[in-house]
Amino acid sequence: MELSALLTSAGINIGLCLLLFSLYSILRKQPSNKDVYFGRSLAQMQSRRHDPHWFDRFVPSPSWIVKAWELPEEEILAIGGLDAVVFVRTLVFSIRIFSISSIVCMALVLPLNYFGKEMQHKEIPSESLEVFTTQNVKEGSRWLWAHTLALYVISCSACILLYFENKSIIEMRLSHISGSSQNPCYFAVLVRGIPQSSEESYSDLLKRFFMKNYPSRYLSHQMVYQCGKIQKLMKTAGKMYDMFSNHSSQQVCAPCGFCGGRSNAFSILPNEPEVIEKGKIDLNTTNLRGGGKESAAAFVFFKTRYAAASVAQALQSSNPMLWVTELAPEPRDVYWSNLCIPYRQFWMRKIATTVATTVLLLFFLLPVALVQGLANLEKLGQMFPFLKGVLEKKLMNELVTGYLPPVVLVLFLYMVPPLMILFSTVEGSISRSRRKKAACCKVLYFTIWNVFFVNLIYGTVITKLDGFPSLKDLFNGKLLNGNLPTNLADRAVPALVKFFITYVLTSGWTSLACELVQLYGLFCNFVYKSIFKKKHGPFDGGWTFPFHTEVPKVLLFGLIGFAFSVLAPLILPLLLIYFSLAYLVYRNQILNVYLFEYDSGGRYWPIIHNTTVFSLLLGQIIAVGLFILKESSICLGFTSLLIACTVLFNEYCRRRFHPVFNRIAAQVLIEMDQQDDQSRRDVIYQQLHSSYCQLEWITCDSCKSRFSGNSGEEGCKQGLFWPLLLMLLP
Amino acid sequence: MELSALLTSAGINIGLCLLLFSLYSILRKQPSNKDVYFGRSLAQMQSRRHDPHWFDRFVPSPSWIVKAWELPEEEILAIGGLDAVVFVRTLVFSIRIFSISSIVCMALVLPLNYFGKEMQHKEIPSESLEVFTTQNVKEGSRWLWAHTLALYVISCSACILLYFENKSIIEMRLSHISGSSQNPCYFAVLVRGIPQSSEESYSDLLKRFFMKNYPSRYLSHQMVYQCGKIQKLMKTAGKMYDMFSNHSSQQVCAPCGFCGGRSNAFSILPNEPEVIEKGKIDLNTTNLRGGGKESAAAFVFFKTRYAAASVAQALQSSNPMLWVTELAPEPRDVYWSNLCIPYRQFWMRKIATTVATTVLLLFFLLPVALVQGLANLEKLGQMFPFLKGVLEKKLMNELVTGYLPPVVLVLFLYMVPPLMILFSTVEGSISRSRRKKAACCKVLYFTIWNVFFVNLIYGTVITKLDGFPSLKDLFNGKLLNGNLPTNLADRAVPALVKFFITYVLTSGWTSLACELVQLYGLFCNFVYKSIFKKKHGPFDGGWTFPFHTEVPKVLLFGLIGFAFSVLAPLILPLLLIYFSLAYLVYRNQILNVYLFEYDSGGRYWPIIHNTTVFSLLLGQIIAVGLFILKESSICLGFTSLLIACTVLFNEYCRRRFHPVFNRIAAQVLIEMDQQDDQSRRDVIYQQLHSSYCQLEWITCDSCKSRFSGNSGEEGCKQGLFWPLLLMLLP
Repeated sequence: MELSALLTSAGINIGLCLLLFSLYSILRKQPSNKDVYFGRSLAQMQSRRHDPHWFDRFVPSPSWIVKAWELPEEEILAIGGLDAVVFVRTLVFSIRIFSISSIVCMALVLPLNYFGKEMQHKEIPSESLEVFTTQNVKEGSRWLWAHTLALYVISCSACILLYFENKSIIEMRLSHISGSSQNPCYFAVLVRGIPQSSEESYSDLLKRFFMKNYPSRYLSHQMVYQCGKIQKLMKTAGKMYDMFSNHSSQQVCAPCGFCGGRSNAFSILPNEPEVIEKGKIDLNTTNLRGGGKESAAAFVFFKTRYAAASVAQALQSSNPMLWVTELAPEPRDVYWSNLCIPYRQFWMRKIATTVATTVLLLFFLLPVALVQGLANLEKLGQMFPFLKGVLEKKLMNELVTGYLPPVVLVLFLYMVPPLMILFSTVEGSISRSRRKKAACCKVLYFTIWNVFFVNLIYGTVITKLDGFPSLKDLFNGKLLNGNLPTNLADRAVPALVKFFITYVLTSGWTSLACELVQLYGLFCNFVYKSIFKKKHGPFDGGWTFPFHTEVPKVLLFGLIGFAFSVLAPLILPLLLIYFSLAYLVYRNQILNVYLFEYDSGGRYWPIIHNTTVFSLLLGQIIAVGLFILKESSICLGFTSLLIACTVLFNEYCRRRFHPVFNRIAAQVLIEMDQQDDQSRRDVIYQQLHSSYCQLEWITCDSCKSRFSGNSGEEGCKQGLFWPLLLMLLP
Repeated sequence: MELSALLTSAGINIGLCLLLFSLYSILRKQPSNKDVYFGRSLAQMQSRRHDPHWFDRFVPSPSWIVKAWELPEEEILAIGGLDAVVFVRTLVFSIRIFSISSIVCMALVLPLNYFGKEMQHKEIPSESLEVFTTQNVKEGSRWLWAHTLALYVISCSACILLYFENKSIIEMRLSHISGSSQNPCYFAVLVRGIPQSSEESYSDLLKRFFMKNYPSRYLSHQMVYQCGKIQKLMKTAGKMYDMFSNHSSQQVCAPCGFCGGRSNAFSILPNEPEVIEKGKIDLNTTNLRGGGKESAAAFVFFKTRYAAASVAQALQSSNPMLWVTELAPEPRDVYWSNLCIPYRQFWMRKIATTVATTVLLLFFLLPVALVQGLANLEKLGQMFPFLKGVLEKKLMNELVTGYLPPVVLVLFLYMVPPLMILFSTVEGSISRSRRKKAACCKVLYFTIWNVFFVNLIYGTVITKLDGFPSLKDLFNGKLLNGNLPTNLADRAVPALVKFFITYVLTSGWTSLACELVQLYGLFCNFVYKSIFKKKHGPFDGGWTFPFHTEVPKVLLFGLIGFAFSVLAPLILPLLLIYFSLAYLVYRNQILNVYLFEYDSGGRYWPIIHNTTVFSLLLGQIIAVGLFILKESSICLGFTSLLIACTVLFNEYCRRRFHPVFNRIAAQVLIEMDQQDDQSRRDVIYQQLHSSYCQLEWITCDSCKSRFSGNSGEEGCKQGLFWPLLLMLLP
């Protein structure tokens, strides 16, 4: 691949991106697309958009860029919670570190690579890409210290930046916690594995247990009910509600849903709050308390936050499978249907999903092999001679090597996140944020393994063996013939540089543009509104930010950057453009598109930190391979020292910062407890039961598709649904 | 190696063992050796032994065997605590499982191996050992189901036995905890990483912190002082004491040391207890509270056990490096000198020792290679032609192949445990039991890696390559050429069977006999008493049970047993004899020789459980290799199923049983709290300070060599030492 091919590819992608960005700036102004592009902020956007004579809407404009750029961090925190801030901080960190890397590597490493061997240089555009990589540096070169220096600068700045990011995110998390001191979740402990008793109901047993052990701290509790029955009731009530609302409130309901105001259609019962309150009490005390309806889990409320935290951390019983306690997730974050799973199943589910994930990882070898085969065009021509004619055309060649492989890969990769979410659900995550975080980890392993390592290893094998290696070869250790780091630096890495450059161009840049335009959302919206003639598209309520796909994506590009920074500095400017675009795009999406219904409190940060350090280490190990290959023992020694320092730095951060993400310091909780006066405490105590009312949350989930936006939910809760449900109860 | 050579080796070892056992039964009756053989129970053994005309003492007798056999488990618990019981239970478990294995494998597998191929059998004694292993089974044999069946029987019985052992040990641990409810350690929390303040002393800061956060639960605290200064004082006082006691109490002191009675020599001060009490108060309040003397660690006492446990488990501060709390070890278990280490050093120390341990593991490759070279006599002959003449002699041959390699290995291995104890000390273990447990883990990894795996891998390499492989070959992956399990089963394992058989015979049986006779102790005792003419040997006080060497030893033999049970059933009876002897010997040693000054509360059990399951899995994986080699896909499938089940079983046990070893259930603590009445609580509160008095314990340690036995310590504490120390204080 020549530099010109790279430039062609970059040109195509820049054009595509510009096109999509302009398209977005037009599409977002069309009233019919507001569901797609302003899911989050629909309520504030009503005024101007409905004017059909506002023709400016067909002119592309960069106003969204300005808005996204100017969005202050406080507002991101207010809109998206700590998770969104952590995500944006990751982008900022990436921009900073890759700016430094770009400057250092373009100024220092690139010229040395280019003039590394005494050779006849062609004109720059028609130079091969290899000339810009370390492949062009001759063995035993005196100039390799420059590569070491660049590596040191990159690693040190990365560590320093990471350290300060860690510090500021910890601070944000702490102020987030102390800011949310009225949150009922600090008083609640989720208890699972309540032992079965033939004499007592779960509820009585639980009350007796906690009254005996924590008489002065126990406040009350709220059982979790088997979801099946409740959900069936919900469904019936939902259907009835749909019928009812379709008939009577065709005009009235819609504005109510958007503005959150209470329309007349909902006023059929004179005193809803009382009725609902009564209904709830009924649900909790009589109707749902039959034999098999309670499940072996409950929320137990304590009088102080510290008491709840200390009970949650303790091992309650000598049988660790019984009375399992942990701090309850926030009410809106609870994943109710997993709470009913018997606790003794969890370890089996965990193993099963781990096995399933591993199998998926290995199964994906096959399509990746295919993709890699496409990139090795000559090999493909040898294997399928009838393709030779087609492949020898120049345009075709450039298209196939430069564009097709990443696209195939991206298409395959689209299947993975929903599968991982499914695995995390089966695993039994008790909160929605934890489920997403678990899926994020799985997708991350998957991405790094399948996109990076398998390509790397396969690249090595394909350039060495004669044909496509069988799986048997792969496991028989043929890959490990010879010294791994040297192999990496020698054949695999330079051969793959062009693959990853095109990967950044296509999967990186274009996926950002697609993210912005929301092709899938647009398509669904169009189908719903134009073909099915429905009033609202399928995404009316907005949908939550897909951390489980976006975090691994960003981290993968970081990994590619750190791995290739010294070897092929040309990749760095492309990455820098990617991260800058990502910064704008994601801020826009956070502001306009996505909902943030739940928040893990910045728990994505340890994942991001660890992956970044891993990427750094990978880059350093590849550099070690390079220095072995180029026979520079001094550089080798210095790089080994750098590896040791990076490991030490990571270990320090792991101990200094990361425990704060898993537990809340007792000092903080006690301070919050001491600040409460009796009246404030009484208010919180009163809210506890209603916040963790299972029915209410399931209702909300099931009517989400009917009422869009956050403000709509209130209307829903106070609306028609409850009376209907009450009517259905036996 | 023929069967006859094995029998010769077994004969030599049986003879050696019998000789040593008889020697022991004589030596133990000699009064001069009582320090060596009755370190623990010296006090009760005075009467008969001093009679010089008791000539029976020169006649070997099996009385010790009877005593060891009859020792009930309750007494072991009383003498040695839960750790000793866990160790004995491990031996019982091993005897049970290897009895079952022996029966199944000798009855089912051995005949099938022997008649596996159609061949001319020689007389049994002159058969080669290979005939009794699976090497003799022909490929695709229909009889391999018997091997699978044997594997199933062994694995299932091992799991069932392990399950019940887990259950009974958990029960013992719980009753041990509830039995020791008066132990002050349940009320104490060790706090490290107290932040430095220019205005306040550590003590004041600590008091303010806990008074503010836990006003109703905090009782008092006890600072830890910099050891250097105190130990210097101790040393001076100790020297003075030595001088004094040598001059004045030459006759009086000795019986006092043994019987624990108070001699006149100690009565120089009229009211020692008061003086000492006063001294202590002085030490704590004025003398030692100068600027640099307090260290950033302290014991904080709480009013209830539950409060202490919940404080210990909580993250105290948002900076996880400050105010680090954990449940205090028992007073006699505290490793004082490590408490002064600043907490922020711990992670570095941990990394440093991990690196050091790893380096040691790799460094040991060299002597092991030498040993393995000796076992491959022909290779040695090829390499050193001048040795050929010597090596061709039959006796020499048998001696070198059968006896020398394990002896060399054992000698090298003697160096390791002290090193590992040193590493664990440097690592910063805060209690003596934890230090020993950490050393035990390190020695275990070391033993399994260096004795088992390196021999295994090296055996494979040596039989394949032409000469000794270099380290470079080893890491370049030449080992992994080809399928690892098949290689294991094909070449490595059968080639190593004879090595491990001789290893069991020598290192196993003989080391037990040596353990019984205490050669080193005898030698030192002889040197001290006969050459230096001292009244007491160096081991007068007895020494603590070396769990860190004995647990890995026993587990290694278990590993060898599980790994080779199906492949070479001949090894099983030898192991069974080893474990039966070990059962007798260790019970005798627990009863008579070793002190049990501290107890980890059975925390060795998870290590033992995990290693046993690992051994089981290793045996199953080797069997998989065997079945691949013998082309039996049905057996392969069944064994894979067995592996999956074993993993599931382990996972279950890890969740069901092991958390109890790390934490005490809140229910148990609260029950103990609720059983206390006010008066009993007051008694405990009063004891807290004196139990965790640093000076007292350091004194005890430093005068251990002067006063032997447990009862002697009391005499020491109340004796001359304190007044001397008080005189020395500024």
